[in-house]
Amino acid sequence: MSNIVISSRIRLARNFKDYNFIYKLDEKDALKITEAVKNTVLTSSDASPSYFREITGEELKKEGGKLIEEHLISPDFMNLAIPCAVIIDNSREISIMVNEEDHLRIQVIKPGFNLKEALKIANACDDLIEEKNEYAFSEKYGYLTTCPTNVGTGLRASVMLHLPAITMCGRLEALKNNLNRLGITIRGCYGEGSKAYGNLYQISNQVTLGLSEEEITERLTGVVEKIITDEENLRESIKSDALTDKILRAEGILKSCYLLSFKEFTDLWSYVYLGMDMGIIDKKEDFYKLIASLAPNSLMEENPEARDRKRAQLIKEVI
Amino acid sequence: MSNIVISSRIRLARNFKDYNFIYKLDEKDALKITEAVKNTVLTSSDASPSYFREITGEELKKEGGKLIEEHLISPDFMNLAIPCAVIIDNSREISIMVNEEDHLRIQVIKPGFNLKEALKIANACDDLIEEKNEYAFSEKYGYLTTCPTNVGTGLRASVMLHLPAITMCGRLEALKNNLNRLGITIRGCYGEGSKAYGNLYQISNQVTLGLSEEEITERLTGVVEKIITDEENLRESIKSDALTDKILRAEGILKSCYLLSFKEFTDLWSYVYLGMDMGIIDKKEDFYKLIASLAPNSLMEENPEARDRKRAQLIKEVI
Repeated sequence: MSNIVISSRIRLARNFKDYNFIYKLDEKDALKITEAVKNTVLTSSDASPSYFREITGEELKKEGGKLIEEHLISPDFMNLAIPCAVIIDNSREISIMVNEEDHLRIQVIKPGFNLKEALKIANACDDLIEEKNEYAFSEKYGYLTTCPTNVGTGLRASVMLHLPAITMCGRLEALKNNLNRLGITIRGCYGEGSKAYGNLYQISNQVTLGLSEEEITERLTGVVEKIITDEENLRESIKSDALTDKILRAEGILKSCYLLSFKEFTDLWSYVYLGMDMGIIDKKEDFYKLIASLAPNSLMEENPEARDRKRAQLIKEVI
Repeated sequence: MSNIVISSRIRLARNFKDYNFIYKLDEKDALKITEAVKNTVLTSSDASPSYFREITGEELKKEGGKLIEEHLISPDFMNLAIPCAVIIDNSREISIMVNEEDHLRIQVIKPGFNLKEALKIANACDDLIEEKNEYAFSEKYGYLTTCPTNVGTGLRASVMLHLPAITMCGRLEALKNNLNRLGITIRGCYGEGSKAYGNLYQISNQVTLGLSEEEITERLTGVVEKIITDEENLRESIKSDALTDKILRAEGILKSCYLLSFKEFTDLWSYVYLGMDMGIIDKKEDFYKLIASLAPNSLMEENPEARDRKRAQLIKEVI
């Protein structure tokens, strides 16, 4: 099977009973919540799947950009004015943000098409915290959240998809419209404006109310399976010498360049990843991870040109 | 020293006494001339620098395009209506065309900056033929030729130069004007229109009257030395990370592509050759020869796409 699904993500939004929601939360209460979550998660002996640690202080300042590019924190998290925290596990699959838009944002990212497993782990984290804390919950509406769109399950399920053929064939607008009708959004994972860098798209459920966690996950899974079939069929239809040429050149440029912008890198990455799926280039384990690790902030270089040089160096070591 | 001069070429135009010049030459006389030259050159035991053979019949039909791209025959030669012949030596440095624009065109191409050596060999061929045949010669004007521009020495000296820096820096127009004032022409070696493929230029003397062979050759040598200095200085001034990037990518694309047009090949070749001169890429013996061997007709493939595929294959074997 082709590697069209890069990763699967589950995010749960939760708030604690007896505290104001974020926009009315004072510093004292914000600190109390932060401490409560840290005490629960960091001291838990049965924390799943492995141990957690807090990223804070200098480390957070230095690695913030990288964490955003890994989707472990939101861009907003870096600018919060009240006490807050982020806890991640050592495999960097789980992140727990405290006092972002909700008191608690539990997020699990699994590689590949694996929403069920991600949901299972997110639920385990949720249970772990709920054991010692009480959530804001309504019998009628479910979990209460700062933004009404999250009320109910508080669940957002997302899948990151690599859709080069759908993009090249100009089918993206139609897909977008179809998904909107199903209450599902699609947007570029990287890059600004209308063009998604590297043909990478995030597909997420919009509705969290009136459906169970399992129903949301299953619905999204069904939709993604249909998109995968479309992408695979289109890939068959675009096979040509010209495409093979583009793919082999992309690999050649990644291997040889001396300067490489992130935008160009993602375009070349997309061709090479497609080439691996099509059997034109040998598959490389974890090749998809390059996208996050070569993003601008992950490179920790001072100026854009130094980053472009560093990126060109790093890609040569990997490829 | 950098490899700015690709090759040096000497061409002598000669006509036999007692025969009409080409435009009035009948078939019978044309055949006589052809036989006379063949008898003299092909049977000579002291032919220099090695033995000669005639390319004719099916071989000529098949290889004509390739011979043109190697500059061993002129495009016009393939369409001559009277008996004619081309004789080359086995190192493919010497070609003797019979009944092209003049009864005799002796041409010698040597790699590198070597006009003197080329002139020496051309003179030896000339002497070899003159031993047994009498040329049309005037005490007042020198050797007589079909076109008045060749009267006198009948000599054209040319040098093929690789001028990427002069081209990139937009100095080509100025160079052209300066050379014209000295009676020297510059034109692209490959490609149509104003753009010279691969930044390769042919620089030739225009005046053949009133100067000796040695004077013509020395004057051209002096001019070329000045151009080399300019090109070298400009190369120093354009050194940058961006240029290194372009050079390394060009090599990467040559190594990886699946389809490659001749135009693109020459552009990439130019960067790689420049990179070899600048010490960015390891030097490769005879790399300049690729230009002729990968030109469209040299590939002997039926359609352009098959040629582009073949060219991409061949370059991978060489580089």
